[in-house]
Amino acid sequence: MKTLKLSLALTAGTAFAQNPAPAATASPAPTVGSVLAASQPSDWRPLDPENTLVMEVGGARPARVIYELSPAFAPNHVANVKALVREGYFDGLTINRVQDNYVVQWGDANPGPQRRAITTGKARLAAEFDRPLAGAASDPPFTRNPDGDVYAGEAGWSQGFASARDARSGRQWLTHCYGALASARSNEADSGGGTQLYVIIGHAPRHLDRNTTVFGRVIQGMESLSSLPRGTGNLGFYEKPEERVPIVSFKVAADLPAEKRPALEILRTDTPVFEKLLQLRRTRRDAWFHFPVDRIEVCNAPVPSRAVASK
Amino acid sequence: MKTLKLSLALTAGTAFAQNPAPAATASPAPTVGSVLAASQPSDWRPLDPENTLVMEVGGARPARVIYELSPAFAPNHVANVKALVREGYFDGLTINRVQDNYVVQWGDANPGPQRRAITTGKARLAAEFDRPLAGAASDPPFTRNPDGDVYAGEAGWSQGFASARDARSGRQWLTHCYGALASARSNEADSGGGTQLYVIIGHAPRHLDRNTTVFGRVIQGMESLSSLPRGTGNLGFYEKPEERVPIVSFKVAADLPAEKRPALEILRTDTPVFEKLLQLRRTRRDAWFHFPVDRIEVCNAPVPSRAVASK
Repeated sequence: MKTLKLSLALTAGTAFAQNPAPAATASPAPTVGSVLAASQPSDWRPLDPENTLVMEVGGARPARVIYELSPAFAPNHVANVKALVREGYFDGLTINRVQDNYVVQWGDANPGPQRRAITTGKARLAAEFDRPLAGAASDPPFTRNPDGDVYAGEAGWSQGFASARDARSGRQWLTHCYGALASARSNEADSGGGTQLYVIIGHAPRHLDRNTTVFGRVIQGMESLSSLPRGTGNLGFYEKPEERVPIVSFKVAADLPAEKRPALEILRTDTPVFEKLLQLRRTRRDAWFHFPVDRIEVCNAPVPSRAVASK
Repeated sequence: MKTLKLSLALTAGTAFAQNPAPAATASPAPTVGSVLAASQPSDWRPLDPENTLVMEVGGARPARVIYELSPAFAPNHVANVKALVREGYFDGLTINRVQDNYVVQWGDANPGPQRRAITTGKARLAAEFDRPLAGAASDPPFTRNPDGDVYAGEAGWSQGFASARDARSGRQWLTHCYGALASARSNEADSGGGTQLYVIIGHAPRHLDRNTTVFGRVIQGMESLSSLPRGTGNLGFYEKPEERVPIVSFKVAADLPAEKRPALEILRTDTPVFEKLLQLRRTRRDAWFHFPVDRIEVCNAPVPSRAVASK
């Protein structure tokens, strides 16, 4: 259950101990642990190896980062990044930018004309900043956050991703929460496409929502990105080439030998179990909390993952 | 102006370049830079050396972290932490906990009974989770965020600090935004007091608001805390003593020789200049933005600081 522990720790835990030893509890009130323990196998879904990326980061603290992709929200970016990954585009490139409370960004550090050639992928793609909010069956399932949102008409969770929507404009989109994976771009909306990617490592810069294509999120290994040394150049770019952090490999999980694929499953966000967890996080019941605020912001609710039980 | 640049970069920049070279702009529209350049000396206030702490962090990447304290919101905690700092309580202690997307926490790593003796400070203090919202002259100045808040009736800025308030309960408090400095505690409300301190290094865990005493914020050096290796123990505690990061010294700025005091000034948040900056961050005008959302969340607006001009 190591994976579950890490995943739950990704966002705020329920305790905030002054002392390393967790307080003993005899309370029969439901906890995150007890709700998850009571979940059924059908409350979980396996990570789809075709929509999972595995990055091996080198440098001072080598680490593995696992990403889940969202073909529902950004089908063309997902397809193109997978094509780039499959042609080995990112292997041997570097993390070039780490801006505090903002982003980690990687790709070819060279200026445009000197960049690595692309063989099967595309260098530019039409933006997928958002998608239609069709209503009913053609939309991905959506669990609404009852507490509203500063940036959007509604926010909530779709297929494990924090998302937002606006009924007036009839659009929905993935939000820039901590761990969001998106495609960087220049000024033109279609100037990205997936050759330069970034992950959010700070307080959600939600003003980026609908301004770039968010197409995935970090499932595991986030702490290896968020703890990288910050770049001291403009916008957090590393100033010296030797500061850049190597990407040893970036693969689609389906292309890895079976034993090397991440064996993880994700709690479905369209389940009563997830709603119960959400309620527990809205109103903290444990003895530590004196003022359980009874509200939550969309980026503060982690979606649990766990190791697939061995058969 | 290095300080100003760093401070502005602490939260989301206005650009999100794919390329290190910033785009040339001929636009006469106001920018963060032009608004700050047009500010008057009276729009700024110097850091008060009596309410500024300077921490020298050791370890693999030695760094200096500067904190501003808030006697208006937590007078007793500010006084007690200064007393602890002045008796050298923290010098030689360690950062013991780094939990991803949550907190960095420091203090005596030993269990309670074996902890360093306190001579002039207090080990426990009554909570200062919030303070009365008296209305009018006795409240600190408050600049309201027009875009609302998920967690509180109102949010905004008081004396440089992100704060929130609730007219019904008649209370106001400092929020757990990125960089907030607060006092850890056990289950009892008065079990903190300032011997174990933490700083927020992730997406604002606002459910902690009014559950601990926030009494300061990081003004400079945040990136040295946020990039520390995450602890692999329960709640992000370092598992091995040698992983802990030494606090070489922790001083009140007023006690440092004049030439070693941080020479910084902070933009007043009760000024038209700050309101203009806020408006620029609510509606991003530069060419990169295709969807300027016209909204901002309280933790997404940095308060600029800059080096005091040499005389």
